[in-house]
Amino acid sequence: MSATDRLIEANRRFATTFDRGGLEAAPAMGVAVVACMDARLDVYRLLGLREGDAHVIRNAGAVVTEEVIRSLAISQHELGTTEVILIGHTKCGLEGLDRDEFAERLERETHAPRDWTIGAFDDVHQSVANSIAQIEASPFLSLAKSVRGFVYDVNTGTLNEVI
Amino acid sequence: MSATDRLIEANRRFATTFDRGGLEAAPAMGVAVVACMDARLDVYRLLGLREGDAHVIRNAGAVVTEEVIRSLAISQHELGTTEVILIGHTKCGLEGLDRDEFAERLERETHAPRDWTIGAFDDVHQSVANSIAQIEASPFLSLAKSVRGFVYDVNTGTLNEVI
Repeated sequence: MSATDRLIEANRRFATTFDRGGLEAAPAMGVAVVACMDARLDVYRLLGLREGDAHVIRNAGAVVTEEVIRSLAISQHELGTTEVILIGHTKCGLEGLDRDEFAERLERETHAPRDWTIGAFDDVHQSVANSIAQIEASPFLSLAKSVRGFVYDVNTGTLNEVI
Repeated sequence: MSATDRLIEANRRFATTFDRGGLEAAPAMGVAVVACMDARLDVYRLLGLREGDAHVIRNAGAVVTEEVIRSLAISQHELGTTEVILIGHTKCGLEGLDRDEFAERLERETHAPRDWTIGAFDDVHQSVANSIAQIEASPFLSLAKSVRGFVYDVNTGTLNEVI
């Protein structure tokens, strides 16, 4: 049985007690979260979110790319969110990743020309600060009344704000 | 008190009982999930995931963009995942979105030249099928032994596989 099969089985059990149907698409709290894809971040649980509360956008490193701008623009202009929460985290695989080594290994393993940047960074606090600045500077995201960033400690479960 | 402040308060309570520290970055189940940012999808709960089990990548529509390729390539080549699960859902805001109307409204509201595509689609099943094909075709994602796609029913909590 594959991991996917086990997760589908878990969904069958989840659905038998599901009682959160009939919700609207627009997030009830007016919030969009941008977080790293890291497996240790259960974004709903760590923020106390319930289904319907907030959009959740995730990628490798929680870096602000064109894709994040797209998702947040739809979140704000189509679905009415006005607060953005950025979440990087400790022990991120992209913090201090050796870009050259990874790029070389990827080329060796894939034999393919890469047209995307790896998105690694040297310091997660600086990366979150940069992301806040990028969102605040985007003309597509000017409906945000609040853009705040945090580093989540994967060992303690605590969010620490990046000022 | 802003919604962000309320969520930070919820995190304080979460951290007091947090007992999932010390986990590795590599997902324990070897799985990467790609899902829509929609607020109604609590991906961990609907799949029975715990912290550390799976990467979770999310954007508007769960469409496969260059950004998703980047995140999945890091997931596979740097952190060892070998199964991909795609999750679109019913009542998606991007299904049947009037691209022209939205593009015009965005231009009127932002006065900015847009260099990204909106990523809307006409049918979520077809969109998930396309995403499976894109992942299977990418030279950067050939370490995947399994790529399967689903439409999540936001009213019943059930995953239905796209074959």
